[in-house]
Amino acid sequence: MDGRKWAYEDFAVGDEIVFGPRKVTAEDMIDFASQFDPQPMHLDEEAGKASMLGGLSASGLFTASVFMRMMCDAYILDSTSQGSPGVDYVNFRKPVLAGDELTGKTIVLEKRVSKSKPGLGFVSVKHELANQRGEVVCEMANTGMFLMRDPVAA
Amino acid sequence: MDGRKWAYEDFAVGDEIVFGPRKVTAEDMIDFASQFDPQPMHLDEEAGKASMLGGLSASGLFTASVFMRMMCDAYILDSTSQGSPGVDYVNFRKPVLAGDELTGKTIVLEKRVSKSKPGLGFVSVKHELANQRGEVVCEMANTGMFLMRDPVAA
Repeated sequence: MDGRKWAYEDFAVGDEIVFGPRKVTAEDMIDFASQFDPQPMHLDEEAGKASMLGGLSASGLFTASVFMRMMCDAYILDSTSQGSPGVDYVNFRKPVLAGDELTGKTIVLEKRVSKSKPGLGFVSVKHELANQRGEVVCEMANTGMFLMRDPVAA
Repeated sequence: MDGRKWAYEDFAVGDEIVFGPRKVTAEDMIDFASQFDPQPMHLDEEAGKASMLGGLSASGLFTASVFMRMMCDAYILDSTSQGSPGVDYVNFRKPVLAGDELTGKTIVLEKRVSKSKPGLGFVSVKHELANQRGEVVCEMANTGMFLMRDPVAA
């Protein structure tokens, strides 16, 4: 085990890790959508205005990807993360529009040691992403897998 | 309503829409991870081999984004899609490795007309993505919103 800050032992139920802000630009939104989700409301301001979303709006996958990068920079890259077996849910509560400035937080809900893989633990978390008006734009929950710093003591 | 093929009325419970194949390259996986999920196992073959994933492996968000693009090309871009309020779950069942060739399907589970928004309907679907060995690598479920071709008749 090297010196990374966030091993399994470092997450406590109730912890909140905050991250951001990160501004999302029209250029980045369109670049992503062109590759992965080229629906008109994600590519063009006029098509966005004509849609339910009210303007050029981010693909949900772009929002989730930016969200992930913000978490990487805040704690995941400085952790013993082994990835995640999946995502429990994602709610897109408000459109993410060009120029929005996003901030986020991760809240630790529960944790448990793996029964089958010694030295591994599961950390269940909820994540929220909000815009510059404090409106929650996206909620997600998942379980991350993290190596322990000290498997013998756990 | 223009001539797009997939309006709300065109989805029937039990329908299966198949799509792919699409090959994922190490270059595309690394390019995505560099931007959005720069964890070592998504950037480097040796780090991937040292991880639980067994090799350079796609970020789950890359897999989900490629999955979305495959669905766009198969039917969403030729539909009256108005996006989705969220994702019910995502399961990453197997690692997606460089060179994998992915095929997918969407299965229609249920549909209902919006009570609050005339002319709009909700289509709940499950999606599966499999590799060239027929192993399911990713499962997702969500509800898409689609305009009706003929709101009066619905």
